[in-house]
Amino acid sequence: MKRENISDAVIRRLPRYYRYLCDLCDKGVNRISSQSLGTKMNVTASQIRQDFSCFGEFGQQGYGYNVEELKCEIGRILGLENPHHLILVGAGNLGRALLNNFSFDRAGFSADAAFDTNAQLFGSEINGIPVYSVDELDTYLQSHPVDVAVLSVPQAVAQSTADRLIRLGVRGFWNFTNVELTSREPDVIFENIHFANSLLTLCYRITHR
Amino acid sequence: MKRENISDAVIRRLPRYYRYLCDLCDKGVNRISSQSLGTKMNVTASQIRQDFSCFGEFGQQGYGYNVEELKCEIGRILGLENPHHLILVGAGNLGRALLNNFSFDRAGFSADAAFDTNAQLFGSEINGIPVYSVDELDTYLQSHPVDVAVLSVPQAVAQSTADRLIRLGVRGFWNFTNVELTSREPDVIFENIHFANSLLTLCYRITHR
Repeated sequence: MKRENISDAVIRRLPRYYRYLCDLCDKGVNRISSQSLGTKMNVTASQIRQDFSCFGEFGQQGYGYNVEELKCEIGRILGLENPHHLILVGAGNLGRALLNNFSFDRAGFSADAAFDTNAQLFGSEINGIPVYSVDELDTYLQSHPVDVAVLSVPQAVAQSTADRLIRLGVRGFWNFTNVELTSREPDVIFENIHFANSLLTLCYRITHR
Repeated sequence: MKRENISDAVIRRLPRYYRYLCDLCDKGVNRISSQSLGTKMNVTASQIRQDFSCFGEFGQQGYGYNVEELKCEIGRILGLENPHHLILVGAGNLGRALLNNFSFDRAGFSADAAFDTNAQLFGSEINGIPVYSVDELDTYLQSHPVDVAVLSVPQAVAQSTADRLIRLGVRGFWNFTNVELTSREPDVIFENIHFANSLLTLCYRITHR
């Protein structure tokens, strides 16, 4: 599989392709042209072919893509073959909303545990996921593999919580705190869901419509 | 003010500049060089100057930028001068998390009302914001200006809820449903917070680290 200098834009299109191909599979669709895929994804057919060519040869001239094959291939590229392990730190409204409604498994993750400072939650479960005290993070991380921590803690403790988790070996963060987190460790990855940036962008767009 | 063919990438950087300049103002910092601003924002100084040049002339050779002036100017560009009006549709865990924790006013919006199907919520308030029945949407929209609807309804009713709001005149959507919404109206704007795309991107990054 080729994979050199894949641009951020291409990487961010892969999940959309993947989810649409899953939908097509569910509907029993067997093949699709780059033209139709492009129309649905709002990119050109040539963009589609270019995106996929970053990862190897898919599709056949005149036939298009085999939906099931392409879905599996993009799933593999995304890293969905083996589930990654995830914990959530900060089980407030947002953390609970995620645990109750978000399909972590479909994004390649097993949500194993949640941590909070609210003693009333210790020992309880949210959607089957046990909630522990943040004081138990050290012990937990010594005996459980954790690839990603979802950070949904208050802003004031966002960086310190991340620092603590990094010291304990966590290298991936799904960051909901609206704080721009940093780390000196070069292998730490922050993926941010930044509500404020998103709404400010919307404000710009409706203003300059 | 110049403003032609501003790229999506530039628009998405504006909120980050704006928020950082707000932080600097709060700290009493009066001026900053494009170099320092770039280092903090993780872009080059020349990128900074290029971004700002899309909107006019800011800063002075050898002096840098006046923080307060630049903040106000970017705020104006983002459309923050006059607050826009916003309603939230779907007051479940996620909707409540947003109403309780998110500073809509800092992103240029007044959060005026929430709507849900759960009769137990009708007449209540979440963080001072009244909750009404979705059946009251028509009446409400006839007598109140609404620039943006936050959509935090279940996936199954995402498109139909958007369609209804569009028929009632809403033209901006902050979409949390993970559904790719569409409209035939050319002036409707969807800004998506797409949890699944984001986590799949993180999955890719930790897999190919």
